[in-house]
Amino acid sequence: MRIDRMGEARLIRLIQRTVKSRGRLRVGIGDDGCVLKNGTVVTTDAYAEGVHFELAYMSYEQVGARCACAALSDVVAMGAEPEVLVVALGLRKGMTDSEVRALYRGIERVCAQLNCEVGGGDIILLDRLVLALTATGRTKRPKLRSEANPDERLFVTGYLGLAETGRLALKLRLPKRGLLPAIRRHIEPLPRIQVLRRLGASVRALIDTSDGLATDARHIGELSRVRVVLWLDKLPIHPATHRLCRAMGLDPVRFALCSGEDYELLFTARRLVVSSVDRVPITCIGSIEAGSGLYSVSKDRLMPVLEIGYDHLTAGQTIT
Amino acid sequence: MRIDRMGEARLIRLIQRTVKSRGRLRVGIGDDGCVLKNGTVVTTDAYAEGVHFELAYMSYEQVGARCACAALSDVVAMGAEPEVLVVALGLRKGMTDSEVRALYRGIERVCAQLNCEVGGGDIILLDRLVLALTATGRTKRPKLRSEANPDERLFVTGYLGLAETGRLALKLRLPKRGLLPAIRRHIEPLPRIQVLRRLGASVRALIDTSDGLATDARHIGELSRVRVVLWLDKLPIHPATHRLCRAMGLDPVRFALCSGEDYELLFTARRLVVSSVDRVPITCIGSIEAGSGLYSVSKDRLMPVLEIGYDHLTAGQTIT
Repeated sequence: MRIDRMGEARLIRLIQRTVKSRGRLRVGIGDDGCVLKNGTVVTTDAYAEGVHFELAYMSYEQVGARCACAALSDVVAMGAEPEVLVVALGLRKGMTDSEVRALYRGIERVCAQLNCEVGGGDIILLDRLVLALTATGRTKRPKLRSEANPDERLFVTGYLGLAETGRLALKLRLPKRGLLPAIRRHIEPLPRIQVLRRLGASVRALIDTSDGLATDARHIGELSRVRVVLWLDKLPIHPATHRLCRAMGLDPVRFALCSGEDYELLFTARRLVVSSVDRVPITCIGSIEAGSGLYSVSKDRLMPVLEIGYDHLTAGQTIT
Repeated sequence: MRIDRMGEARLIRLIQRTVKSRGRLRVGIGDDGCVLKNGTVVTTDAYAEGVHFELAYMSYEQVGARCACAALSDVVAMGAEPEVLVVALGLRKGMTDSEVRALYRGIERVCAQLNCEVGGGDIILLDRLVLALTATGRTKRPKLRSEANPDERLFVTGYLGLAETGRLALKLRLPKRGLLPAIRRHIEPLPRIQVLRRLGASVRALIDTSDGLATDARHIGELSRVRVVLWLDKLPIHPATHRLCRAMGLDPVRFALCSGEDYELLFTARRLVVSSVDRVPITCIGSIEAGSGLYSVSKDRLMPVLEIGYDHLTAGQTIT
């Protein structure tokens, strides 16, 4: 079967069946990263021009920063402090040294903010710019997608759909008034490490929102074997997203469910007493219950969630 | 300046100037991999269809195995035991699940031989097959390019130019008689971990031969601030390479100096009493002296070596 018709989840299961465990890993394929027995987290991600970023409205420095944010977000989503980032670059032949330098300036700037080292890499020539970034980190107690339990609540940092709002604002060249926070979140989605540092002890299951709330919440439900119920009336939707959805005739709740690449922390906890950390809002958006499936509650009606987020293989969102 | 005119070495220096050290690394940019203070080695490499491998005469399983060998070779070249390999894949849209599975079978087979785990990865769609593999390993005492000292000898495992002999045999569809060892070394250049395990304590400077002896020996000389003198009459050149060079009218010594991707261990040691480990020959091919530059001795004449190996940016070998 062609991979662009089978979707990521099936392909990952196929790969899981092909490789064998040799007892060195605490966490293997299927989470945001793998974890060695000694607590080292390793996670890798690839980003291509025209798919994950656009040079039409982003500088090379912004591209570097954005990809570094996404890579380090996976380390944070394992409950770890980033340590080192290595960079495999596929460059276009005509690129100049100052463009490469700008890319690395962006990567370095984000690494500096997360106290992470750039440890080297590899460079090859391709037809378009591709970055494959691998980050390592360290944690005594990895946070997994599979550790949600009934009677916990579901929380998310920041805003849902804000980065996608920013992406569309740039792509469609909308007037920037009122959309700047969204554009900033798209261009430099800094991982929420300060939230992890402050609240880590309370966090049970953890994932970062890279494929859209609907998909990411489903991952927690499936891997923890619990039912996730989303409180649709409580989703944190930024005024910029409301403004964009109004202008485009979109439903902001569906937009929040399906939009990827916010790189916010989505986690479960028994209880949480703070509503923000360092001005990053933390919102309770649902509950964990015994059972299975992803459900939503809005105005007291319980419904299965049919929306799905972004699939990198079929390259689409299905809003049913 | 366009990067395809400036070469890898200058680009690496430019990147070194752009990123800052934060004291977490024992070894940073510029060796086969970086090393964290706790002895974790991290190394990343990218491989593209049409550049690093050809699907015209290699199966997907062979491609997976070959790329895994190359990635793990860098860990071994840091004096470390591989621990985990993560895989960022850029797949062509039309690829099938069985092709992806074959790729992973090849990766898994090599990892099994080196007792390394496949720890997951990421998949995106591109116009051609690209693999970015990142491997980690662990070592108490990393082996660096910069640790050669005068009065040491230079050694290499296996044969020089053997993998390139195999690549040309396949590419030019030569009759395979007498060329099979070369084809095997091109298709599955298993890292020489058994040599490292047996002789590690004697090894001083270490690098793997990925860009050709001329370039790789120069790296040792430059980073160790010593003169490297190659004994051209002693280079281990396989009968298959002699056969190919005869047929193509090439000088086998120049061929051995310039051909990349053998993934043999090139190292210095004070003295070595074995001439093979597990049937892998180990040959003394030169000496380390005070001074600088790469020189050769043949029939008692000392000459500077002008040959250079493969440069991935300018994508060429210059045989002057």
